[in-house]
Amino acid sequence: MANDTLAAKTDEAAQPGSPVTAAAHLAPAVDETLRRFLTAEIALLDTVDPALGGFARIAQDAVLAGGKRLRPTFGYWGWRGLVGPQESVEPVLPALAALELMHAFALLHDDVMDASATRRGRPTAHRLFAAEHVAGARRGDAGHFGNAAAVLAGDLCLVWADQLLATTPLPTATVFAVRACYDRMRVEAVAGQYLDILGEADPDSWTVERSLVVARHKTASYTVQRPLQYGAALADRSVCCGGACRGDRHAAVSAAYHRYGLAVGEAFQLRDDLLGVYGDPAVTGKPAGDDLITGKPTALLLLARELADRAQAAALDGGDVDAARDAIAETGAVARVEDLIQQRLAEAVECISDAPIDATVRSALTDLAVSAGDRAA
Amino acid sequence: MANDTLAAKTDEAAQPGSPVTAAAHLAPAVDETLRRFLTAEIALLDTVDPALGGFARIAQDAVLAGGKRLRPTFGYWGWRGLVGPQESVEPVLPALAALELMHAFALLHDDVMDASATRRGRPTAHRLFAAEHVAGARRGDAGHFGNAAAVLAGDLCLVWADQLLATTPLPTATVFAVRACYDRMRVEAVAGQYLDILGEADPDSWTVERSLVVARHKTASYTVQRPLQYGAALADRSVCCGGACRGDRHAAVSAAYHRYGLAVGEAFQLRDDLLGVYGDPAVTGKPAGDDLITGKPTALLLLARELADRAQAAALDGGDVDAARDAIAETGAVARVEDLIQQRLAEAVECISDAPIDATVRSALTDLAVSAGDRAA
Repeated sequence: MANDTLAAKTDEAAQPGSPVTAAAHLAPAVDETLRRFLTAEIALLDTVDPALGGFARIAQDAVLAGGKRLRPTFGYWGWRGLVGPQESVEPVLPALAALELMHAFALLHDDVMDASATRRGRPTAHRLFAAEHVAGARRGDAGHFGNAAAVLAGDLCLVWADQLLATTPLPTATVFAVRACYDRMRVEAVAGQYLDILGEADPDSWTVERSLVVARHKTASYTVQRPLQYGAALADRSVCCGGACRGDRHAAVSAAYHRYGLAVGEAFQLRDDLLGVYGDPAVTGKPAGDDLITGKPTALLLLARELADRAQAAALDGGDVDAARDAIAETGAVARVEDLIQQRLAEAVECISDAPIDATVRSALTDLAVSAGDRAA
Repeated sequence: MANDTLAAKTDEAAQPGSPVTAAAHLAPAVDETLRRFLTAEIALLDTVDPALGGFARIAQDAVLAGGKRLRPTFGYWGWRGLVGPQESVEPVLPALAALELMHAFALLHDDVMDASATRRGRPTAHRLFAAEHVAGARRGDAGHFGNAAAVLAGDLCLVWADQLLATTPLPTATVFAVRACYDRMRVEAVAGQYLDILGEADPDSWTVERSLVVARHKTASYTVQRPLQYGAALADRSVCCGGACRGDRHAAVSAAYHRYGLAVGEAFQLRDDLLGVYGDPAVTGKPAGDDLITGKPTALLLLARELADRAQAAALDGGDVDAARDAIAETGAVARVEDLIQQRLAEAVECISDAPIDATVRSALTDLAVSAGDRAA
């Protein structure tokens, strides 16, 4: 099943104005919001110095080059769950699109940290900046310049996200609630990324529990849980319960999103662990057995290590990717991780099943949970 | 004259509640605000994983390790200029302290980009993270890990700045004005830093005019002009004109701050250019002739190149720091830069002289202008 459940929904017969129709148009609407905002910002930078325009255009390309728009999607459903099927998404589009700029910031910095050569099938920003350095016959180390420029491009995206968020027309209390959620999300994303690089550098100090803490922060919080709660925070209380909301429904929905988000996010990360070892490079866009090569201490690898007999342990550390792959499966770790994923999906479906949200939204979130846990890329 | 004019003011007899007394206590009050905020944030991260507490403590040390608190100081005077001498600074301290967290973000990223070993007399954050990597006998390249962790520490400081800013109790319209100014400042800081690294990599494409664009963005905007305007934006209109402000005084003051900020910021950068060649390493904390070694295309060096005869040009590019230093002075470039500084200081004093602000604030800003253009470190 493709990850982009929203796209699959376009074929279904849906009433105009229904959440399903709106969701089908979400990704293009987010892209259009981003394009309009970025065009104006880049024009401003161009007037200061053409080199700044060129710099900002590489940041822009990193934002617009593709991606699943997963965070705006969860944000959208989080919002739709409270405002119901009729409310126009138009006013909250800048806030949803801001999540994508924040994501571009994280990817730009991650790619420098992981020294990744490609992203979404294109050279990464630090590689593009380094290539410009070489083409211009500039002084100093091209790789160092590329990294520095890409870090700055990421910084720019993070500030752009704030600027775009600030254009969302929202009541004061709503602004504060949205920003508080956004700030927690960003701290958790940075913290999760630090644990991620620490784990790769220091795998011997890692445990299955610790790998799940990383999953909770780096993936669950940042990809699912906080975007959903951010969406819920965006729901103006003068709208969400026919104007009669006293906050109790908001609180119940936010609690359900919290549990759902953690469960789906962890399932998403555990699926990632499996794809990192068994994924098809043609589909994932990453090298075969990527995690085995980098030695990333994922829950899958740590479980395999716990369960391995002596021969399997030797294969895990022998440096032969195929042998390690077979050994992991033989230990039973793959089956255990599949079980963990299914447990989390069941938990997600259960906690969303009695949340006080629209039935269409419940069904969309159920589909998204399944696709997060059961995908090929 | 030391740069910290505020400290010098403590000795003067001042009425309690007067801006002069309040300014003398500003730096410690900003530090106390930062300390309280950071303690709570780090305690939260410690509960997630002790490694995160350790990570955040290195970021915290970068924030609290010293520095002139120049941006909160300009923010303070910008605010004081509108609210008058009696208003308590207490409520706006979080917003002023947020500027220092934003500055820590910029320094952490700059130090990675410049591969600086020390900052404020201590090892830079990326060096500390790299040393932890070595001490822990971790996998992979310690320098790469140090850089990645320091970039993340910078990211964390930028998010912390937003969180601290959000705790400032302000009316809605004020929040929007402050954030708009803050966002412009951050874009300009990132843009200025990009031009800075581009200039070092590509000095042949640089001109005196372009070096002044960098000075305007990297130093003037980010250090003086925007902090002043940010302070002005913080001034609640229900307070600033005895509750009768219709915005015209705000606009006049903001325009004066704009001109003053550009002039002082450029003077500050031009003095930096002179210190980068002639500064005393014991006072500046940087190697003697630092800019000559890195080949940074400063206004000073570009002017010297324009004015140099053949022998002087040869000395400029000969690789001998002492000879280059003498040659620059012989071209007359030093005298020209001193002239440029004096012109800017005169402009700064002039445009603040008839701004509708309190006389004490006018006098403080005049002192700050002089100390920015005439300092040893």
